[in-house]
Formats: sequence, C-alpha cells, structure tokens
Amino acid sequence: MNTALLVAYDGTGFAGWQVQANAPTVQEALERALAEVFGVHARVTGSGRTDAGVHAAGQVCSLLFPESIRVSPERIADALNTRLPPAVRVLGSVRAPEGFDACRAAKRKTYRYSVYVSPREHPLFERYAVRVPQMPDLAAMRACASLLEGEHDFAAFSAAGSSAQTTVRTLYSVRVAEGEELGVPVLHMDFCGNGFLYNMVRILAGALLDAGGGRLTLSAAEQALRTGNRELLGKTLPAKGLTLLSVEYGFPLFERERG
Amino acid sequence: MNTALLVAYDGTGFAGWQVQANAPTVQEALERALAEVFGVHARVTGSGRTDAGVHAAGQVCSLLFPESIRVSPERIADALNTRLPPAVRVLGSVRAPEGFDACRAAKRKTYRYSVYVSPREHPLFERYAVRVPQMPDLAAMRACASLLEGEHDFAAFSAAGSSAQTTVRTLYSVRVAEGEELGVPVLHMDFCGNGFLYNMVRILAGALLDAGGGRLTLSAAEQALRTGNRELLGKTLPAKGLTLLSVEYGFPLFERERG
Repeated sequence: MNTALLVAYDGTGFAGWQVQANAPTVQEALERALAEVFGVHARVTGSGRTDAGVHAAGQVCSLLFPESIRVSPERIADALNTRLPPAVRVLGSVRAPEGFDACRAAKRKTYRYSVYVSPREHPLFERYAVRVPQMPDLAAMRACASLLEGEHDFAAFSAAGSSAQTTVRTLYSVRVAEGEELGVPVLHMDFCGNGFLYNMVRILAGALLDAGGGRLTLSAAEQALRTGNRELLGKTLPAKGLTLLSVEYGFPLFERERG
Repeated sequence: MNTALLVAYDGTGFAGWQVQANAPTVQEALERALAEVFGVHARVTGSGRTDAGVHAAGQVCSLLFPESIRVSPERIADALNTRLPPAVRVLGSVRAPEGFDACRAAKRKTYRYSVYVSPREHPLFERYAVRVPQMPDLAAMRACASLLEGEHDFAAFSAAGSSAQTTVRTLYSVRVAEGEELGVPVLHMDFCGNGFLYNMVRILAGALLDAGGGRLTLSAAEQALRTGNRELLGKTLPAKGLTLLSVEYGFPLFERERG
C-alpha cells in the first residue's frame, strides 16, 4: 500500500531530513518508528531534504507499507506518533496513488523565512526566527520580491556544491507579510516555487532583507540573476528561521489535515 | 542607583522566577550575571514570581546598583546579556525612581494564555502553547470573559496554598483573540488585572476553554465566583501556555523598549 504522511518537525535538534551516520535526522526518526510500531523496514521518501536546523509544518513523504499488515492508512499517523520523539509528529496519513513518490511528484513547495525586529535578542523568538535590529523598508523588500518572481536562473542564489542539473527555477510568488507577536514586530517571507536549489530560500530571504536595509539595490539583484554571481549577494541566513510550509502535488492529498 | 530591568525569558528550562535550592531559576540567573559582570551581589526583585515553565515577554524587576560602579543605567542590559543563559535576556535597563520596588509598585499586569487548535500534537506549537483538539465556541468564551471582568472574589480561581491575604482582585479586561500561524488556528486569551492569585490565570484560561467547549455554563462560572468553590472549575492548565506580557506602574518606565 503506497502511503503518504504529512509531517511537522522542530528542526532544532536534527541534522536535517536525510539519514546520516552518527547524527539524528527526521527521516531516521520516522523509519525507526515504522520499525518499532509495525516491524516495517521501509525507506521514507521526503518531498525533499531539509537542512540541519530547518523546521517543517507540512513536509510530505511517501513509503511502501506492506499489504500484509492490516491497518487503515488513516491510523498510521497516530500509531507512529506513539514512538516518535516529541519534535516530530505525523499530522496525517493517507493511501497514496500507486507509484506516488513524494519527491518526484512534488509540483510546488512553499517555504517561510521568519524574522523578528528587536534591538536585542528575545528568547521567545530565537528558536523559530532570526533577529534583525531595525525594521526594514517593506516597499523595497517587495520591489525585490517582484523582481525575483517568475522563471529565472537562480545560480547566484544557491550554495556551491549543489548537484542540480539546472539552476533554472520558477518562483510563483514571493510574499512579505508584516505582523506582531508579543508586542514584537515580525516579518514572514513566503516563497512558493516549483523547486529550490541548495540554500536558495535562505539566500533569497537574505537578499530581501538586504534590499529592505538598503544594502542591495534592485539593479544589483537583477545583476545577480543575470550573471549567476553569488558574490553579489550577502551571507546565507541561519537555518532556524526557515520552515517548510507545504508541498503541493496537483491533486488533493491532505486537504482535510490542512483545514 | 535604583535600577529597573525589562526581562524576557523562555521558562521551559526554569523552575520559575524565584531563587530556590538545586534548581535553575530566572532570578538566580540574573543575580549571578550581576555578580559575574559587575561584582555586584544584589537582590533582584521581580514584579511577581512566575511558576516553573511560565514564560515572560515583559517581566520587570528592580535592584539597587551600587553608586560606586560607574555605568550608565542603559548599558546594564547589554552587559548582563553577555553572561545570561540564552533563555533569559534583558531587553532594557533604566534608572528607576528612588525607592522603586518592582513588586510593590506594580499597578497592572497582563498575562497571555495561548492555545492552538489541532487534532494532533504539532511540534512547532508545543513549546509556547497548549493544544485543544477542536475550535471552541468563541462567543461562549467571550461571554464568560465578560462575566469575569471587574472586581470579584477569585477564591475559586486560585490553587490551594495561596498565601494572599485577600482573594479579591480586579480584572480590567479579559480578551479572546483568534489568529492563525503556519496554517494552524491559534487563540490568545489576555488577562489584564491589578494582581493575580496563585495559578489564577491558568484556571481562568481553563474556565474560558471549558465555556467554549460547552463544559462550563455561565451560571456555573457565576456560581464559582459567588461561592469560591474551586471544584466547580476544571483542571489548572499547563504552565507552558502562559506568558507574562507586561507590567504597568502608572508612569513610563520602558516605553522605548516596548516600541
């Protein structure tokens, strides 16, 4: 039975999604729970890897669940949750179409990068957001966001060591929303695209903040897109501000869980 | 020099505000940082204790800083932050009026109790909020909130063992706000009052949720106020959903830090 899981995790204590030796990963936590609860030793395929420290509210993964084990797919979530560490929870489990592969079938992903605005560190924000000392110019951020939307070669917006065959990707939307939590201004930058290169969201978010802080002009951002020169852009932002919000497949998979 | 500090903390790892033997507390962390940075051994007086696991975005405390140490009061915050654990940060420091005592001078405090609505645990909400499986009836919650506002004997809304001389308190406002984070519905219950009994906010928040879930009628809540019978109300909610938002003194103290 091909099965899809909707998974949320607090990435703080994990060395990322993908199984690796001698470091806790989310994939390993899920595969271990599958083995402990059902005796199933199956590969859990995520929609994509997330890096060490990156969070997820809507990661999707797929696995082949043996037909010999009689369990309704909807019950797999609660069963796995009894054995998962508290930082990982399966929010939903469903039967997936035959041949469904959560990675290859992914059509769109949405990532959020969150920052809070404060002259000093605030312990209630440090876990899931990155601090900026002053409120950036939102109009400048949004002008840069518009520039980044669409199909571009994002070579300048990816870290070296990426194994992607092409660095062309499409950003369907880049949105900058301002809000307030506990009296502290917060900004959410949401990136929806057909795929993301290594570190791409963290470099994109950094570019938006640099635009909002007057450190990156629109023409420099344009030049980065045109030339693929990573050095025109600032540092890659920390992982902790990044959350995988959702993955879409072009057909309903977890509509109920998403409310 | 009488000094006031505006302090934020993530209460998860602390046995509360007040110094105690063999357990980490926020007060102890601040007093230790004072000793390490300035060689000052002073008592740090909070606006009130917070229990183990309770967070603060705007705790206020006062201390007598020796005149012999020449430092501008505004610089004390950054200096202390160099030695505090990451879960505690001083957001601001100012010279306070002579004789100012952060506890005795407190006129109003505002606490927030936060819940998120989800059929399953969500790891990105568990640290600062408590889960409710279904959306409560907000109109019923607000009707109960209105009932609780004003001056009442809150004996039924406090835990046994409270040493308060009177259980009469005034709630200036009780507000229920709904929002959404990461696609998940959240509710914030804000309680502003002239003082709070032991566990009072957690019992009040539980009563509002019980009202919203059809488990507490308005007349039962009224009866609890009238009779002081704790047994008419539900369980005390967990500490982790509770955050001390702000303390007011009737004169400006940290207006700049609060933005």
